[in-house]
Amino acid sequence: MAKSILILPGDGIGPEIMAEAIKVMRLANDKYQLGFELIFDELGGAAIDKYGVPLADETLERARQADAVLLGAVGGPKWDKLERDIRPERGLLKIRAQLGLFGNLRPAILYPQLADASSLKPEIVSGLDILIVRELTGGIYFGKPRETRVLENGERLSLDTLPYSESEIRRIAKVGFDMARLRNKKLCSVDKANVLESSQLWREVVEQVAKDYPDVELSHMYVDNAAMQLVRAPKQFDVIVTDNMFGDILSDEASMLTGSIGMLPSASLDANNKGMYEPCHGSAPDIAGKGLANPLATILSMSMMLRYSFAQTAAADAVEQAVSDVLDQGLRTGDIWSEGYSKVSTREMGDAVVAAL
Amino acid sequence: MAKSILILPGDGIGPEIMAEAIKVMRLANDKYQLGFELIFDELGGAAIDKYGVPLADETLERARQADAVLLGAVGGPKWDKLERDIRPERGLLKIRAQLGLFGNLRPAILYPQLADASSLKPEIVSGLDILIVRELTGGIYFGKPRETRVLENGERLSLDTLPYSESEIRRIAKVGFDMARLRNKKLCSVDKANVLESSQLWREVVEQVAKDYPDVELSHMYVDNAAMQLVRAPKQFDVIVTDNMFGDILSDEASMLTGSIGMLPSASLDANNKGMYEPCHGSAPDIAGKGLANPLATILSMSMMLRYSFAQTAAADAVEQAVSDVLDQGLRTGDIWSEGYSKVSTREMGDAVVAAL
Ligand SMILES: CC(C)[C@H](C(=O)O)[C@@H](O)C(=O)O
Ligand SMILES: CC(C)[C@H](C(=O)O)[C@@H](O)C(=O)O
Repeated sequence: MAKSILILPGDGIGPEIMAEAIKVMRLANDKYQLGFELIFDELGGAAIDKYGVPLADETLERARQADAVLLGAVGGPKWDKLERDIRPERGLLKIRAQLGLFGNLRPAILYPQLADASSLKPEIVSGLDILIVRELTGGIYFGKPRETRVLENGERLSLDTLPYSESEIRRIAKVGFDMARLRNKKLCSVDKANVLESSQLWREVVEQVAKDYPDVELSHMYVDNAAMQLVRAPKQFDVIVTDNMFGDILSDEASMLTGSIGMLPSASLDANNKGMYEPCHGSAPDIAGKGLANPLATILSMSMMLRYSFAQTAAADAVEQAVSDVLDQGLRTGDIWSEGYSKVSTREMGDAVVAAL
Repeated sequence: MAKSILILPGDGIGPEIMAEAIKVMRLANDKYQLGFELIFDELGGAAIDKYGVPLADETLERARQADAVLLGAVGGPKWDKLERDIRPERGLLKIRAQLGLFGNLRPAILYPQLADASSLKPEIVSGLDILIVRELTGGIYFGKPRETRVLENGERLSLDTLPYSESEIRRIAKVGFDMARLRNKKLCSVDKANVLESSQLWREVVEQVAKDYPDVELSHMYVDNAAMQLVRAPKQFDVIVTDNMFGDILSDEASMLTGSIGMLPSASLDANNKGMYEPCHGSAPDIAGKGLANPLATILSMSMMLRYSFAQTAAADAVEQAVSDVLDQGLRTGDIWSEGYSKVSTREMGDAVVAAL
C-alpha cells in the first residue's frame, strides 16, 4: 500500500538539504520497495509568501492525510519584522499542536569520525549517545492565559502560563521509559520541583509511571543541575525526559556538546507514532543557497522516519550506514570540516550518501 | 560607623566554609578598619531545626536591619521529605523576595591556575570572564496563580505563572547595562521572544533602556541558542542579562564551564546595593563535616560584599589577590585538585588565605 510523505522544505537552507534527503529517500524507496509517494507543500516563511500565513489550512489538512511529514527548517530575517502571531515559527508550533506531536525525540550522538569537532575534551564526550525526550505540545509554549495587561499604575505586565495535566505528563513519561527500555535502561526526569508547582505534579506522575517499568532505573534532576551535568559529565545520561521549555534548552545544549549540530536529526511523534521529522539545526539564512549546508541531519531525520513511522529497520540501518561510510571516506561539509579532510558541497555530500547506499 | 553583617551559615558544608570566610573577614576588618560587626542566625534546614520554619520572622527582621548578609548554602536530605512550602529552599526564596534582592550577579571566571579543571578544551575557555545578571524576585518563581486544580474529567492539572512588568524588566536591564559599562561594554539579553509573551515585553523594555546606554553594545539571543553558545564559544559573551528561570539554568551552565564551581561567588542586590552574598555552589551534604569543602567561593562572596555593598575596593582587591596567591602556591581543595598540587583541607585553605592577606 502506498505511503504518502508530506515534504515541507521550509526556508533558508531547507530546500537545499531537503533536495539531498529526497535523493536518498527515492533510492531507498526503490531498493526496499517502500511504496513512498511524495507530496510537497510549504511551511514557515515560504508559506507566508505563498499563502499569507505560516501554516495554511490546506497544508495542515495534507499533513493530517499524510503518513509522515519531513521538514527542512523554518525562519529567516525576511519575516522577522512580522507580528509574532504570523511569523514562521508559529507555523511550526501550530503544526506540532494540531497534529498532536507531543513526543519529541532529540538524540545527541557524537560520531567517532567527528570527535574533534566538540568544544569539550575528547575524554568527556567520546562515545556520547544521549536521547532527550521533550514534551512538545504542552507547558508554557501553549498555556493560557498568555497576555499583556495594563496595571493600575499604568505600566504593562505580560504573562505566560505553564500548565501540565496528569495525562500530558503520563504519556510523555511513557515515551521516556519506552525509549530507555530500548537503550541502556536509565531515565533521568528533569524538572524544577523545588520551585514549580507543575514540576511537583510532573515528578509525582513520573514516579507512578515508573511502577510499570521496574527494569528502568529512574532518577530525578533539577534543570539547573542538568544544565551543569551536561557540561561536566554528559555520559552519565542515557535518556532524559523533560517538559517543553526545559527540553528546548537542554536539547540544544546537548546537541552542541557533539560539536556537530549539522548531524543531528529529530522526530516528533503522536500517540500512534505518526510523526514529523526534521533536523535539529535551524534554517541558517546566512549560508542559504551557497551549497554550504550539511544535508546529513535531514538525511538522518528521514532514516528516523523509516524507523519510527514505518518500522523499516533494514532501510533505516542502511541509510545510517551510508552516512557513516561517507564520513569514513573523509567527506565533510564546511560545518564539520577540519584540516586533512575533503571539503564537499551540500550536493556532493548527498550524492556520496546515494553512492554509498 | 559600625556596619552590621548578618551571617547565615546554613546547612551541609555551609558552617565549615563560613568559618573560613569569617577568619578572612575578621582580618580584613582589622587591617582596613571596616568597622564590621557580625551577627549570626540560621536559614534553611538549620532554621527549620531551630525555629520550625526555613526563615523565621526574627531572622528576616535581622536581615532587614543588617547592612549586608553573607550566606553559606541551604538544603539537605534531612529536610527533603518535608512539604515544599516549608523546605529549606523556601527560606532562600523568601529572603530574596522580602529583601527585594532582584539583581543577582553571577560571575563565571576561569582562574588561569585552574584552566585544566574545565571539561572544555583550553582554547575554548582560557581567559573566560562572563557575568550573568539574573532577575531574582520575579517571573515564574513567584508568579500567581500557582496551583493544582481538578479538571472535569477528574484528573489534576498544575500550573505556574510567568509574569513580568515593565518596571521589573527595566530595573534589571539597568543593572545589566551598568555592569556592562564597568566591563567590556557588551550586553546580551537572553529571552524566548519567539514563543513567550513575557519575553516580548522583556525585549521591548530592554531596547528602551538601551537608549540611555549608547556606549554599550546590546544583542538579543533566544535562551536555547544561548545554552548552545555557552558550550560552543563562551568567550563571545561579556554580560548576559536574563529572567529568573533562564538565569538559574544559564548561570549554572556557565559556572560549570570553568570546572571550578567551588570558586564562584554571587551577589544579590536590592535597589540600593544592599545585598546578600553567597557561593554559587550548593550545600553538598555528602561531603559536609569532612573538611573537604572549598571555602574560596564564600571568601570571594565576602569580597564581592566589600566591593558592592561597602565600596571597599582596596580590601576587596586584597582578598582576591590573596585567593590568587594561594592558588599560585599550589594549594587545592579536593574539588579543584589535580596531580602535582598540594591537597589541603577546608581549614588549611582558609588559613592560607589569611596568611596571604
Ligand atoms: C523555533 C522555535 C519556536 C522552536 C522551539 O522553541 O520549539 C525551536 O527552538 C525548536 O527547538 O524546535
Ligand atoms: C535552591 C533553588 C531554589 C535556587 C534557585 O533556583 O534559585 C538555586 O538553584 C539557585 O540558583 O540559587
